[in-house]
Amino acid sequence: MKSIRILDSTLRDGMHAVSHQLTPAQMAIVAAKLDEAGVDSIEVGHGDGLGGSSCQYGFSRAPEAEYYQAVAQVLTKTRLAVLLIPGIGTVEDLEMAMAHGVKTVRVATHVTEADTGEQHIKFAKAHGLEAIGFLMMSHKAPPAKVLEQAKLFASYGADIVYVTDSAGAMLPADVAARISLVAGALSIPVGFHAHNNLGLAVGNTLAAIAAGATIVDASVCGLGAGAGNTQLEVLTAVLDKAGYHTGVDLYKVMDLAKDVVEKLMHRPQTVNTDALAIGYAGAYGSFLLHSRRAAERFGVDSRDILLELGRRQTVGGQEDLIIDVAIELAKQRNSSL
Amino acid sequence: MKSIRILDSTLRDGMHAVSHQLTPAQMAIVAAKLDEAGVDSIEVGHGDGLGGSSCQYGFSRAPEAEYYQAVAQVLTKTRLAVLLIPGIGTVEDLEMAMAHGVKTVRVATHVTEADTGEQHIKFAKAHGLEAIGFLMMSHKAPPAKVLEQAKLFASYGADIVYVTDSAGAMLPADVAARISLVAGALSIPVGFHAHNNLGLAVGNTLAAIAAGATIVDASVCGLGAGAGNTQLEVLTAVLDKAGYHTGVDLYKVMDLAKDVVEKLMHRPQTVNTDALAIGYAGAYGSFLLHSRRAAERFGVDSRDILLELGRRQTVGGQEDLIIDVAIELAKQRNSSL
Repeated sequence: MKSIRILDSTLRDGMHAVSHQLTPAQMAIVAAKLDEAGVDSIEVGHGDGLGGSSCQYGFSRAPEAEYYQAVAQVLTKTRLAVLLIPGIGTVEDLEMAMAHGVKTVRVATHVTEADTGEQHIKFAKAHGLEAIGFLMMSHKAPPAKVLEQAKLFASYGADIVYVTDSAGAMLPADVAARISLVAGALSIPVGFHAHNNLGLAVGNTLAAIAAGATIVDASVCGLGAGAGNTQLEVLTAVLDKAGYHTGVDLYKVMDLAKDVVEKLMHRPQTVNTDALAIGYAGAYGSFLLHSRRAAERFGVDSRDILLELGRRQTVGGQEDLIIDVAIELAKQRNSSL
Repeated sequence: MKSIRILDSTLRDGMHAVSHQLTPAQMAIVAAKLDEAGVDSIEVGHGDGLGGSSCQYGFSRAPEAEYYQAVAQVLTKTRLAVLLIPGIGTVEDLEMAMAHGVKTVRVATHVTEADTGEQHIKFAKAHGLEAIGFLMMSHKAPPAKVLEQAKLFASYGADIVYVTDSAGAMLPADVAARISLVAGALSIPVGFHAHNNLGLAVGNTLAAIAAGATIVDASVCGLGAGAGNTQLEVLTAVLDKAGYHTGVDLYKVMDLAKDVVEKLMHRPQTVNTDALAIGYAGAYGSFLLHSRRAAERFGVDSRDILLELGRRQTVGGQEDLIIDVAIELAKQRNSSL
C-alpha cells in the first residue's frame, strides 16, 4: 500500500479565514488533536507565514513566537513546520522559529521566482531543518517552466518541492501535467497544495497523487484562504477508500472537525461567488477587494476585471494595475454603446 | 467544442436540504433565472419526486401540482422535468405533471432494480415525454451490473440512462469505470448525477464527462441532499475552462446563487461529518438518524453502524437492520474488553 504524507495547514493557511485571530491556546488544542490523530506534519503561524503579522498583512492575535512555543509543547510525533515567503519573512524570523521547535520550513515563492528562495533553503539545510520549496500560483506557468523552477529549488538543496495551486485555478489535467513532469524528472518527493475555488481540491489532490505526488496538504474543515484547502477529514476518508496509507485516524479528525474547528470558524468554508471568481480568473485572492472597489467606481463588473488580470499574468503586488484595467473596460463599454 | 447538457436539480434534490419547504412562488423565481441563464433542463418537485409529499417522506409546503404550474408558466426555453421513484410516484402522478407542462421524466430505481421502472418508461414514451432511466446508488453494483441494468432501461425505450451516485460514495475511477462501460455499449446518451459527500462532486462530474457522459446534473449553491449536488455555478466555470460548451451564462448563475438561492438555504452546503460518514460508508442518507439513535442506545459509534450497513449492501427500507447491527457491534465490543 502506497504511503502518502499529510501536511496539515489548518493553523497557517486557516489563519487567513479567521483574520489571523486564533490564540496560541486554541492552536495548542488543535495541534494536540492533530498529533493524536497521527498527522505527519503541521504548519503553524500567520497566514502569510513568518513575518506576516504586520500592518500590511494584518496582525496575528499574539506575537509569532508564542504560537510556535504553544504548539511545540504539545506535539509528540508530529513535525512542526513554518512557511517563509522571502520578502515577508527573513532568516532571522526562521532562527526564532527554530529556537521554538520548528523542524521544517517551506520557502514559498511565485512559480517563476524560485531564485528568491535560494538563501533561505541553504540556511535551513545548513541548520539541520527539512527544507521545502513551495511554488505558488503554479497555474500561471506551463509545466516545463514549473519543472525548471522545481529544479532550481532542488539545486539549492530542497528536500521536497511543491506545486501550489494558490488560486484554486487548476483542473485535474493541469495538476497531473505539472506533477508528473516534476516527479518524473526529480529524485526528491513532490508535493501538492490545493485550494477549493473550483470545487476541485479533493479531485485535484487525487490527480496529484496519481501523477506522483507523495506529500499533500489539507486542513480541518478545509479552513484556508478563499474557498479553503483540501478538507483533511474528507481527504483522509478518500485516500483510505482509494487504497493509500496516511497514518491518520479518520474518526479522530472527524471529531476534531466537528467538536473543535467548526466552533473556531468565522464562516463556513463554501465556494461562494467571490472564491469562484478568483478560481475562474486564476487571479490573486487579494485582488478581489480592490477589483470590487474599482468596479464600483468605474461602473464595470468586478469579475471582468479579475478575468483581465488573470489574462495579463499579473502577480501579487501589482494592485495598481487594477485601476488601469477598470478604466480600459469602462472605455470599451462606452465605445460599444 | 463538445456540448454538455446540464440538468439542474436545485428545485427537486435541493428540496431535501430545505425540508421540502420552498413555495411555488420561490420556485418560479429560481426557475425564471435558470431559464434566463440558458440552463437546458430543470427538475422540480418534492425531494423524493412525484408522490413524495407524504407522512413518510415529509410534506411539501404546497400541493405538488402548484409547483409544476408555477414553474411551467415562467419557462421559455428550459425543459421541465420530474423525478418518479416507482413505489412512491405512480403513473397517475405523472399524468398530473404532464397536464402541468412537464416534458421529461426521470424514472429512478435502485441500481439493481431497473425492471421496476419498465411500465413508467413505456408510459412516458407512449405519451410523448422524454424518458430517462436513473440508476440510484450505482456505487453498490460493479460496472457490469450497472451496464446490465442500463440496457434494461434502454430496452424499455429510455432516451437517456443515468449513473447516479446517491450517497456521494464514488471516486473518479469508480465513476469512469461505470460510465465508460455504459457509454461504450449503448447508443443513447449517458448521464451522471453526483453528491459531494466525499468532496468529489465536481471532480467526479469531470471524470464522467471524460468517460463519455454528455448530460450531467448540478444545482445552484450545490443545494441537495447530504453534502449536496455538483454546484451549478462552479461546474459552469469548470466546464468552460475545460473547453466544453454548456450554453449556461456563468455570471447569471453566479448572481442567482448569491442574490437568490443563498438566501433560501437553511444552512450552508458543506461536507460536515454526517455527510462524510454517509459517503465513506456508501450508505443511505436516511440511515443516519436511525444509526445515531441506535448508537446511543447500545453505546457504539454510529459511524461503525453505517460502515457495517454499507458492507452488507443494505438498500433503502431496511432500517430495521440498524438495530441488529448495533446489537452485534455492542456484543463484539463487550467480548473484546
